[in-house]
Amino acid sequence: MSQLDLGSLFSDRANSMKPSPIRELMSYIKQPGMISFAGGNPDPRIFPITEFAQSAKILERDGKTALQYGATDGYEPLKDFVANWMAPRMGRLTKPEELIITSGSQQGMDLLCAALINPGECVVVEAPTYPGAIHTMRNRGAEFITIPCDADGMKIDMLPEALNDARSAGRVVKFIYSIVNFQNPSGSTLSSERRGKLLKVAEDYGLIVFEDDPYGHLRYDGIHEPTMFSMDDSGRVVYACSFSKILAPGARVAWVTGHPDIVRKMVMVKQGADMCTSLVAQAMVAQYCTDGCMDSFLPKIVSHYRAKRDVMASAFARYLPSDAEYSVPAGGFFFWIRVPGIDTRELFKKGIERGVAFVNGSAFYANGGGEDYLRACFTFATQDELDEGARRLSLAIADMN
Amino acid sequence: MSQLDLGSLFSDRANSMKPSPIRELMSYIKQPGMISFAGGNPDPRIFPITEFAQSAKILERDGKTALQYGATDGYEPLKDFVANWMAPRMGRLTKPEELIITSGSQQGMDLLCAALINPGECVVVEAPTYPGAIHTMRNRGAEFITIPCDADGMKIDMLPEALNDARSAGRVVKFIYSIVNFQNPSGSTLSSERRGKLLKVAEDYGLIVFEDDPYGHLRYDGIHEPTMFSMDDSGRVVYACSFSKILAPGARVAWVTGHPDIVRKMVMVKQGADMCTSLVAQAMVAQYCTDGCMDSFLPKIVSHYRAKRDVMASAFARYLPSDAEYSVPAGGFFFWIRVPGIDTRELFKKGIERGVAFVNGSAFYANGGGEDYLRACFTFATQDELDEGARRLSLAIADMN
Repeated sequence: MSQLDLGSLFSDRANSMKPSPIRELMSYIKQPGMISFAGGNPDPRIFPITEFAQSAKILERDGKTALQYGATDGYEPLKDFVANWMAPRMGRLTKPEELIITSGSQQGMDLLCAALINPGECVVVEAPTYPGAIHTMRNRGAEFITIPCDADGMKIDMLPEALNDARSAGRVVKFIYSIVNFQNPSGSTLSSERRGKLLKVAEDYGLIVFEDDPYGHLRYDGIHEPTMFSMDDSGRVVYACSFSKILAPGARVAWVTGHPDIVRKMVMVKQGADMCTSLVAQAMVAQYCTDGCMDSFLPKIVSHYRAKRDVMASAFARYLPSDAEYSVPAGGFFFWIRVPGIDTRELFKKGIERGVAFVNGSAFYANGGGEDYLRACFTFATQDELDEGARRLSLAIADMN
Repeated sequence: MSQLDLGSLFSDRANSMKPSPIRELMSYIKQPGMISFAGGNPDPRIFPITEFAQSAKILERDGKTALQYGATDGYEPLKDFVANWMAPRMGRLTKPEELIITSGSQQGMDLLCAALINPGECVVVEAPTYPGAIHTMRNRGAEFITIPCDADGMKIDMLPEALNDARSAGRVVKFIYSIVNFQNPSGSTLSSERRGKLLKVAEDYGLIVFEDDPYGHLRYDGIHEPTMFSMDDSGRVVYACSFSKILAPGARVAWVTGHPDIVRKMVMVKQGADMCTSLVAQAMVAQYCTDGCMDSFLPKIVSHYRAKRDVMASAFARYLPSDAEYSVPAGGFFFWIRVPGIDTRELFKKGIERGVAFVNGSAFYANGGGEDYLRACFTFATQDELDEGARRLSLAIADMN
């Protein structure tokens, strides 16, 4: 029998594809005794398990719909809830044709890339940014233009020159991707002034803005910035949010709000991608939300994570060497730490030996960089583990010298 | 403010994309009094709603896992169940690295295309075939080589010449797609002799075989043919099956079994596509199955649908004009009917006026054809509706003369 030559059968993209870096770390995290600051996972100890399990009552009541094929754009009661619940942030009640329920934010990103990107075309991303975004966009053939961040998010002043350079080099740019609140990994929030500037640049250059906001509801200090979606009236902002961080990632239910023509294209891609998001999951999330559990539970998550953020901040203040650079994030999941002169890929190995895992900084750079940064997630570990993990991290850093 | 020029921002693929034809028909089907033979939907009246809703107990027991992010290849207890349950059909107990849980079979198809197809490369499909497959494959840039079907499925004898012609024309072919049992739409089953021949051709030409089997468990007469997966020892067969037709499409849980290297590539694509299939849905399906509900309920579905198949067969025998050509399918969801000389796109309009919907034949041809065919699904309508719908269909046909 002739040998199967898979190399010649795989697509070029598949042959060059690498596993998403964070997924690769997961094997280390499962080691006994390991304290994980690595994955951006919510705290399973505060999942509203009973309330969510009870939402299965909707399957008894609406099972003929929830167990059947559903509309590709989403389960209507869930769309209604999302549109109403989000209206204050969106600046208005959005219409059904502006909203698509997706199988996690990851899918929203994937569908948008399929709708906009021809292979070789560019996306502007923050440096650093979420590695899952890089992975998804690259899988759809995107290349990257990276713009550095500071405490106020993407340095918008650098955008025009970067876009001019790209155009001069014959590159086609389609959209600007920004994680606007408590950015993954930097923790920074795009200031309201910069949001306005970003919209202006997008308008000047005829680009879409992809406003990714999985952490927006998890603010521990200060007041919410307005969404770019609410600041724009041209239809160029595509806004994504998710139940993953405020309810349960295992549901895989998220949503994207945008121009009806863009949403329509995303729906057509989704028809081929998975037909519709699990109706079972959508219906249960809808029941949970319309029972009022979302509104009653969200403040508990916020205070739970605020306390954890404070524990990690104290522990880092106590243990980290004095030259470590970081800010205390006002929300979200992450501390982003610079340990000057230390290659955090090497530090990762020392950390594993000491029993603490994190994600090395270079994973967050689409075009390289970040070698002496690391990301530490404070939501997953217990308060005791946050303290002990910070201590172990400091020992690992000492091991590097 | 500058106008948003979406046409120039959409990808070439998105600009040429059309909605999946069957999804488009759905608006007609919702008209009051309409009898639908159109969508390939299971009968919601026999969904095991109570048993499935009770499976939510697993969320109480394993909520910390089921509400969290999960492994991209699937929820382990579900993978275990599938591997064991399918072993008789697979010919052996497959290994975990040979199995990926997908968000419906549609996603399995999408991931496989991403792993194998460079834009412009070809897939061999049956003529007719499932329009959702055409839509998904086209979205990934595939082109099509079509092989006619008869009562024994794809006419494998025509394959070598078609492949030679394609090669002579400089086309690259990656895989052969066959819906092996009770094919959608033709109802035909690939004979065991042809399965062997198909494998031989695939071997001779170095191709992957994508064995799609959503209907395989729904056999109403006769005995099961062996899967091509079980007949092959080269690793070239990728086998897909789903809970959609035997439990609930709304769960969006299916699986693909294949060579570990292919599965690994599909996992990498899936990381970017939706990270993992809804753990909530996977866990509930796993609970339902391990409680024994799958094995106790499946025979009920089979006899329920067999009775419906028989009602549609009797009604067609009574009402359809004598020149209508069709076979009674031995399983699955569909009758495939030729009404010689009648354009079924026109007939569709008459059918809607008469209060019966079906899918016109040309929707099932990747490269054109099938103008005087129609597909009638017998699983969704009630027995009374099956009879009345057949009568209305005969009136619509008479309206054409």
